[in-house]
Amino acid sequence: MGEHFADALLARIRELRAPAAVGLDPLAARLPPELRVDPDDDVAAAAAFEAFGRGVIDTVAPLVPAIKINSAFFEAQHEHGVAAYFRLIAHARQRGLLVIGDVKRGDIGSTAALYARGHLSGRAAPDAVTLAGYLGENAVRPFVDVCRAEQRGVFVLVRPSDPGADEVHEFAGAAGATPGSARPFYRHMASLVARWGSDSDLIGRSGYSCVGAVVAAKDAASTRALRDAMPGTLFLVPGYGAQGATAEACRNCLNADGLGAIVNASRSVIFAYLDAGVAERGGGDWRRCVRLACEDFVADLRRAGLAPA
Amino acid sequence: MGEHFADALLARIRELRAPAAVGLDPLAARLPPELRVDPDDDVAAAAAFEAFGRGVIDTVAPLVPAIKINSAFFEAQHEHGVAAYFRLIAHARQRGLLVIGDVKRGDIGSTAALYARGHLSGRAAPDAVTLAGYLGENAVRPFVDVCRAEQRGVFVLVRPSDPGADEVHEFAGAAGATPGSARPFYRHMASLVARWGSDSDLIGRSGYSCVGAVVAAKDAASTRALRDAMPGTLFLVPGYGAQGATAEACRNCLNADGLGAIVNASRSVIFAYLDAGVAERGGGDWRRCVRLACEDFVADLRRAGLAPA
Repeated sequence: MGEHFADALLARIRELRAPAAVGLDPLAARLPPELRVDPDDDVAAAAAFEAFGRGVIDTVAPLVPAIKINSAFFEAQHEHGVAAYFRLIAHARQRGLLVIGDVKRGDIGSTAALYARGHLSGRAAPDAVTLAGYLGENAVRPFVDVCRAEQRGVFVLVRPSDPGADEVHEFAGAAGATPGSARPFYRHMASLVARWGSDSDLIGRSGYSCVGAVVAAKDAASTRALRDAMPGTLFLVPGYGAQGATAEACRNCLNADGLGAIVNASRSVIFAYLDAGVAERGGGDWRRCVRLACEDFVADLRRAGLAPA
Repeated sequence: MGEHFADALLARIRELRAPAAVGLDPLAARLPPELRVDPDDDVAAAAAFEAFGRGVIDTVAPLVPAIKINSAFFEAQHEHGVAAYFRLIAHARQRGLLVIGDVKRGDIGSTAALYARGHLSGRAAPDAVTLAGYLGENAVRPFVDVCRAEQRGVFVLVRPSDPGADEVHEFAGAAGATPGSARPFYRHMASLVARWGSDSDLIGRSGYSCVGAVVAAKDAASTRALRDAMPGTLFLVPGYGAQGATAEACRNCLNADGLGAIVNASRSVIFAYLDAGVAERGGGDWRRCVRLACEDFVADLRRAGLAPA
């Protein structure tokens, strides 16, 4: 934890030529048959998620810089799942991965301080977390304070991948505006997030802030506009693979330096054994399928020009 | 759990003449001296929070319809705190309180389904949770489905109490709009939340939906406008007491039927022993101070005309 989060992440992206994170979203019903459990049995399900997670982590650690662990899937098993979540964070770090805790927390400042304590500070916590910044800077500051003190990072939601979020994020306020003057809500969030990360002591040697953003790659024009609006902000790009974003679309999240984005793939990698084509190549071994799908994912990003030279 | 959430809550509000919830936000540094612990010791802190929470619950159960338990304060102690959170939910329900889990979760639909499973469904879960609806209807629907199937409730953030949230919630989009036409973001969220709760099978006999809203009482005009914009929506009103909202201001959250709001007080009740005036009347007993402060809180709401006749 001695290095600025953005610097550490970008160094590892260069080293592996892989601006890629694998997302760990374990679902009881999709676990490989030998790990399948009754999701109503919290203890058994948490143990299965942990065994599955260890298998994924050990497999992808040599291939990608980071793993994103989705807290929701562990919280579904109450405190037993939460314990497994923290054990997997420790295991992933031991394997050399940077760990992003996908927690999307967001609450007023006095409460945010407790979420920051539980989810971003101390040895148990991941290197970075995702946040909802909809309650303003006060709600994000306790996390930014931890970033500064403990060399961690955050990714604040700016543009979610689900089109269903558009009814909020495309909101443009007033009627009767001057044509062309409308600025949708997600652009407003982008300007706030860029500001929250702009203090000089938050910027690494790479020029990037430890305050990043979650930015889905939609049409090229709007993605480029977001990229230009927040040049010092790392983008965590959701929605690749199972959710439909292509590597081509993700390339619009890069700055001219060929950096600035890390693309996440979850289901298409971790449940690759369910994909007939990958399963055949993997000979029915789910870990081998994870490796093949992860290699395919990284190769696809490289082919689209996303890997740094 | 046999009754519609809004009906059950309103019945209890009438019975006790108390549109009031007590918020359980335990902080290690503010616990009564005999319970004070090192917050870095998760096991000890979780046990202290549980002992404190049981004391608060046993004291306020005869006085108010509901307790709001803030998950953040428990998550600060990792899985040990989460286990205490769920044990306190069970204890509060046993004491006849309706329980609101203050979790403010919000993520895209496939992830929201897991949060709904962990936080609103089944015997371990509270009667209602707070939600962030910023990712749109898909993000809220899995919770609404649980409300429908298991007679539970949600309160979706519409207007937070912290003025720091205004930089997001007062966003009004386009420049050059027709004067008077600007509609701030929180009004947009209000119209979405009202719509999400409008299906006839979500409305109780009382006329109120199981999809409520978190609405801070700010100036009278904007609060009344929100009340008029979402007449079938129960308001959970934060910010009373330590955060500065007066009972007078909260009255603007009521409909003409004298119903429609439940006001929450946290620190001013649970840490009342730290208030010199209350401490003197309570003879140094922290539980007695909780009772006195809770009675004062309810009396203040009644005096301001918030209690149903």
